[in-house]
Amino acid sequence: MRKIRVLVVLPILKNPALEEVTRKEIEQIRDETLEVNLVSLEQGPASIESEFDDRIASPWVLEKVKEAEVNGFDAVFLDCMGDIALNAAREIVRIPVIGPCQATMAIASMLGDRFSVITILENVVPLFWRKAREYGFIQNLASVRSVEVPVLELDTKRELVKKKLAEESKIAIEKDGADVIILGCTGMVGMARDVQEVVGVPVIDPVPVSIKLAKLMAELRLIHSNKAYPKPPSKLRKFPGVSELLFKGL
Amino acid sequence: MRKIRVLVVLPILKNPALEEVTRKEIEQIRDETLEVNLVSLEQGPASIESEFDDRIASPWVLEKVKEAEVNGFDAVFLDCMGDIALNAAREIVRIPVIGPCQATMAIASMLGDRFSVITILENVVPLFWRKAREYGFIQNLASVRSVEVPVLELDTKRELVKKKLAEESKIAIEKDGADVIILGCTGMVGMARDVQEVVGVPVIDPVPVSIKLAKLMAELRLIHSNKAYPKPPSKLRKFPGVSELLFKGL
Amino acid sequence: MRKIRVLVVLPILKNPALEEVTRKEIEQIRDETLEVNLVSLEQGPASIESEFDDRIASPWVLEKVKEAEVNGFDAVFLDCMGDIALNAAREIVRIPVIGPCQATMAIASMLGDRFSVITILENVVPLFWRKAREYGFIQNLASVRSVEVPVLELDTKRELVKKKLAEESKIAIEKDGADVIILGCTGMVGMARDVQEVVGVPVIDPVPVSIKLAKLMAELRLIHSNKAYPKPPSKLRKFPGVSELLFKGL
Amino acid sequence: MRKIRVLVVLPILKNPALEEVTRKEIEQIRDETLEVNLVSLEQGPASIESEFDDRIASPWVLEKVKEAEVNGFDAVFLDCMGDIALNAAREIVRIPVIGPCQATMAIASMLGDRFSVITILENVVPLFWRKAREYGFIQNLASVRSVEVPVLELDTKRELVKKKLAEESKIAIEKDGADVIILGCTGMVGMARDVQEVVGVPVIDPVPVSIKLAKLMAELRLIHSNKAYPKPPSKLRKFPGVSELLFKGL
Amino acid sequence: MRKIRVLVVLPILKNPALEEVTRKEIEQIRDETLEVNLVSLEQGPASIESEFDDRIASPWVLEKVKEAEVNGFDAVFLDCMGDIALNAAREIVRIPVIGPCQATMAIASMLGDRFSVITILENVVPLFWRKAREYGFIQNLASVRSVEVPVLELDTKRELVKKKLAEESKIAIEKDGADVIILGCTGMVGMARDVQEVVGVPVIDPVPVSIKLAKLMAELRLIHSNKAYPKPPSKLRKFPGVSELLFKGL
Amino acid sequence: MRKIRVLVVLPILKNPALEEVTRKEIEQIRDETLEVNLVSLEQGPASIESEFDDRIASPWVLEKVKEAEVNGFDAVFLDCMGDIALNAAREIVRIPVIGPCQATMAIASMLGDRFSVITILENVVPLFWRKAREYGFIQNLASVRSVEVPVLELDTKRELVKKKLAEESKIAIEKDGADVIILGCTGMVGMARDVQEVVGVPVIDPVPVSIKLAKLMAELRLIHSNKAYPKPPSKLRKFPGVSELLFKGL
Repeated sequence: MRKIRVLVVLPILKNPALEEVTRKEIEQIRDETLEVNLVSLEQGPASIESEFDDRIASPWVLEKVKEAEVNGFDAVFLDCMGDIALNAAREIVRIPVIGPCQATMAIASMLGDRFSVITILENVVPLFWRKAREYGFIQNLASVRSVEVPVLELDTKRELVKKKLAEESKIAIEKDGADVIILGCTGMVGMARDVQEVVGVPVIDPVPVSIKLAKLMAELRLIHSNKAYPKPPSKLRKFPGVSELLFKGL
Repeated sequence: MRKIRVLVVLPILKNPALEEVTRKEIEQIRDETLEVNLVSLEQGPASIESEFDDRIASPWVLEKVKEAEVNGFDAVFLDCMGDIALNAAREIVRIPVIGPCQATMAIASMLGDRFSVITILENVVPLFWRKAREYGFIQNLASVRSVEVPVLELDTKRELVKKKLAEESKIAIEKDGADVIILGCTGMVGMARDVQEVVGVPVIDPVPVSIKLAKLMAELRLIHSNKAYPKPPSKLRKFPGVSELLFKGL
Repeated sequence: MRKIRVLVVLPILKNPALEEVTRKEIEQIRDETLEVNLVSLEQGPASIESEFDDRIASPWVLEKVKEAEVNGFDAVFLDCMGDIALNAAREIVRIPVIGPCQATMAIASMLGDRFSVITILENVVPLFWRKAREYGFIQNLASVRSVEVPVLELDTKRELVKKKLAEESKIAIEKDGADVIILGCTGMVGMARDVQEVVGVPVIDPVPVSIKLAKLMAELRLIHSNKAYPKPPSKLRKFPGVSELLFKGL
Repeated sequence: MRKIRVLVVLPILKNPALEEVTRKEIEQIRDETLEVNLVSLEQGPASIESEFDDRIASPWVLEKVKEAEVNGFDAVFLDCMGDIALNAAREIVRIPVIGPCQATMAIASMLGDRFSVITILENVVPLFWRKAREYGFIQNLASVRSVEVPVLELDTKRELVKKKLAEESKIAIEKDGADVIILGCTGMVGMARDVQEVVGVPVIDPVPVSIKLAKLMAELRLIHSNKAYPKPPSKLRKFPGVSELLFKGL
Repeated sequence: MRKIRVLVVLPILKNPALEEVTRKEIEQIRDETLEVNLVSLEQGPASIESEFDDRIASPWVLEKVKEAEVNGFDAVFLDCMGDIALNAAREIVRIPVIGPCQATMAIASMLGDRFSVITILENVVPLFWRKAREYGFIQNLASVRSVEVPVLELDTKRELVKKKLAEESKIAIEKDGADVIILGCTGMVGMARDVQEVVGVPVIDPVPVSIKLAKLMAELRLIHSNKAYPKPPSKLRKFPGVSELLFKGL
Repeated sequence: MRKIRVLVVLPILKNPALEEVTRKEIEQIRDETLEVNLVSLEQGPASIESEFDDRIASPWVLEKVKEAEVNGFDAVFLDCMGDIALNAAREIVRIPVIGPCQATMAIASMLGDRFSVITILENVVPLFWRKAREYGFIQNLASVRSVEVPVLELDTKRELVKKKLAEESKIAIEKDGADVIILGCTGMVGMARDVQEVVGVPVIDPVPVSIKLAKLMAELRLIHSNKAYPKPPSKLRKFPGVSELLFKGL
């Protein structure tokens, strides 16, 4: 069995604390069949907490995705629940690209009948409803709730966040009818186990499950449909600051 | 009644032919209560024919939207059926922002029971299904068909395009059950009347209807919900080449 | 730009107080491009608070719609959230006919992700769910709530009604997940601004938005599909008391 | 077991041929536990082939429904696939009221996964889609097709109609994926057996099944919810030509 | 009118108390046109409270269904809200087979807009959501609630169960928006009238309504579609303990 | 990284040819982190081609699932697209249980917008529509088509089957709008690559993807929700021929 190389793209400006906790979690799922590299952006937002941030991050994310393919990676994981530039990324490469929002919703659909997402801020709640509608999971989505802690404070407030995740999850289960919980921010990496112990239903950490899925797709050579994600036609495109690589072959 | 000023943002590199035909069409709906300005991009793609193009255009579109508000425009019309950066744009301004894909689907829902979109290339067909799902119009969408003419050839092949639009519309009506037709590219501006004469059901040109809707929203001070489109939180954002204005106040 | 003439049909027996407040609100949106006439019924119910009232009003509403076309009006607005005889009206005329329930749902779909309707009485709550299902907006409808004030008391209890509208809107926003509010009775005309100030999300007054939409449709010659609303076949029809005009040409 | 008395309301002007064929079919399901009376309208349209006809028939249908309750009938069957005034009728009486469109869709949902309706004219096709959406059966509706024979010619062209019903049913089964067929006009009464023999899947004649359902509801005292169909509030209602009975108690 | 013979299959080990109360209720709907026989299982579970029980009961239920056809019964009623082996049963016989979950949902769809199911244990709540999705009634299902009394204690705790049914029904009506209630266990037979008196909306007892529907189907010779439920192909099947009859003709 | 042990349950009587081709395919995905055992039934049907076969296989499948947990397997794969006894199996064990129909639909939802299933016989087409509705993937299912070759002839007619799979896939893509293809029978194991080469969009072989998913779930300790699949209550259950193990602890 060949070793699969997955590139994890953190679609934000370099954040050492988040990189470290992500690396630590990845370490637990790594073995001789899986190599994982992690990269952050040099341009873009410090965190993703709006569709505006998504759009500001997208060009730089696409650069990293294209580089991944050129550099021989077998798959890419876009490490943010906003699934930043997911569809566009699939249009420009022929290696699997995994978005954790879509991936966790698909996985949750096999673990129970209805899931809830517990995310960071009320701000991003509408985003999850839109994604669920776009991806076709609206019937499975019981509710979206938030812990009201910004991304950049997740690391320093880990215990508080876990406590709030458990509280909101319980309400989701008892009041909204959820039977599976999805952690709604990849910055909550490593918190699922503790929350699951308290709430008793499956709690999905998007980071390991997405990387494992990226590997599964790569191993089985399951690549997104080029009918759904066709290659962009050639044309003039101007964009200061991006690598020429991005428009190569387009 | 105050005069309403609408900025039309063409989310592509300057295209004199398209600007001219768009201006001509706008001229027909302008009166003493409506002023319309037109602006194209200095950066971005020459046309939008993929989600990749959408992402490459988005930052520069958002700049134009922000400038529109600062310059006292009453509303913005994002002049491309991809509704480029629509949700993100709404997050950063408090004037109405109209996307023609969403607007024509809403209008079509008042003219019949099921509509079809006739667009440029098979490439962008999936995009309309995704938008219809995200916007909640999936039950109303009978089909998406294409004339297989790229955006940049629409102007020089106007008669051919109208002929093909009529052909595909007829199939949509007879086979797919559509009772309303939406022209699926704003580059088809000015073609609706001729097509409608041939096919006999309403054919919606997205440009005039969107500008009129932008005006209606502005006149009635109906501005998108800040619960659905909340203001992005403040944070560090790096983006070479964009105006400082874009991040002002964020 | 030609002046558009819209006929507002109040589908109830003459109610001077309601006519006055409606005229006052219309006055605020009238300009040199818009002429609005108002007509009430000589036969029918004093108000619409059931599907029974809808059926009792329908023949007389259809008479007014037919007269409007004969008298050269450019569009008709059926001024009651029950969209009285909307589909039937579209079958017998070739000028735009706007129902405010359908119109506000379409407009709300562009202002946020999920709307709630706050109406008069619990009695008419099922009616809005049925309309939302028929029109294809069921996924967008967060909830329907009521202030429990009958139509004919709306005018004398305006302050109470506004207070209750704000209260129910807040519950709709916080508990039901609405991000846009629709006033669920055209007798609540003129109350939206005050409610919106309290609740902070868009509050749609169906009267001005429907008249503006009627004008937009007329200006752009967007007339309902005759595939969706075909002309009724000729046949014997007996109906005491209606004008012969109603069956003319059928 | 008490005898159940069902009133069949033909919502059209007296049509002796249709009355006769309907009576003949009813005769076959009558026994000592069921009495069926048939009544047509003195006012209204000669047939129902549009939503306009529906509105013109409604007040007179409601009169008959109210009379039925006053005269001690146990249930009412509204004998037209347009389910004329069904919801309004339920608001004014506390005996079961059956509409054949709703009833056959509910029965069909127990006989297979997807049904098609084969109706008279293309004109009424949109009506069935609207009903299916309103009633919640849109997922089960495979298609609506028509034989292109007007209601008033159904009787003289019975063999032709049966042949066309079989042809359209076969297309519905093979192309649209239907596994159950609903005859889409109560004027097709008595034709189901012959069509079923040809097409091989269940073909539902709306007349006997609706009368039997009306009886079942009455026997089990299953009366429509007064939460879904609340009694209309009291108020002034003017309507020339209708019996005073109609507004009694309202 | 010929007498219809319906076999009621209780898909559980013989339970004299449940058989008695079921017989008593059946007695109330029996007349000269209806004969009802009741049979329980010799193998299988003592009650159905999970999908596991469903699978353990299924082969023995299928045996009874096949016997029913061989013995000349006109229809079968599978007397448990789990609709045990309903689809499989329809594949092997050409007489109507009624499952009470599907039947009550279809009937409820004619009595109001949204129904709630009040069942025995939280354990079986997911089962009703799955059935509603499979049958196409998900839009009509307001909620599923439970009284938390196991099947085998229903008989000895009848007053308590009725009290709890009323309590949960009220919450379903006021909080979940239900306007019709379905008793979610056939062991609650005979309790509907008392609950309905307290809650004021229709409360459906699945036993009488399903038997009546079975009779209706048989009288009108409405048999499930063999396109939806095709006959299983012939092949080797080994199953110790079942009657040879089960595989006869397959 | 510990080695994961997956039990593959072929829910049919021993079929050496199918076991061999399945083992061959499994061999290609096995490495030092994955051990796969294969087991067939001693009782049950020779193949699954109906819901009847599903019910006849279920008890014996459940026995194997229970044994798997007792024998220390980390996950179970139910190797038939009918997802035989999937929900029931999840109720009785606390190790992941994967059904290939659900699994491939979830995976397909990440590879494109709409998938088609190409299965063996027209007989089982309704089954896939029901599963898609139950699992919540109905919006994603473009069509279900069949090659009309029975399960037991798949092995001897491999080239013919692959040819027909390609033909039906092309129709699904061009006419039904599919952008991903799912092989609709696990007996088609090993055919996906050849079909994919011809049709150009992803073609999913359910066997390897399900085993890999089972491993992924086990590695991440993602076990189905016990709220969605609660443990069956204790009670008397009689079933000749099954191992006592099956009811142990219940």
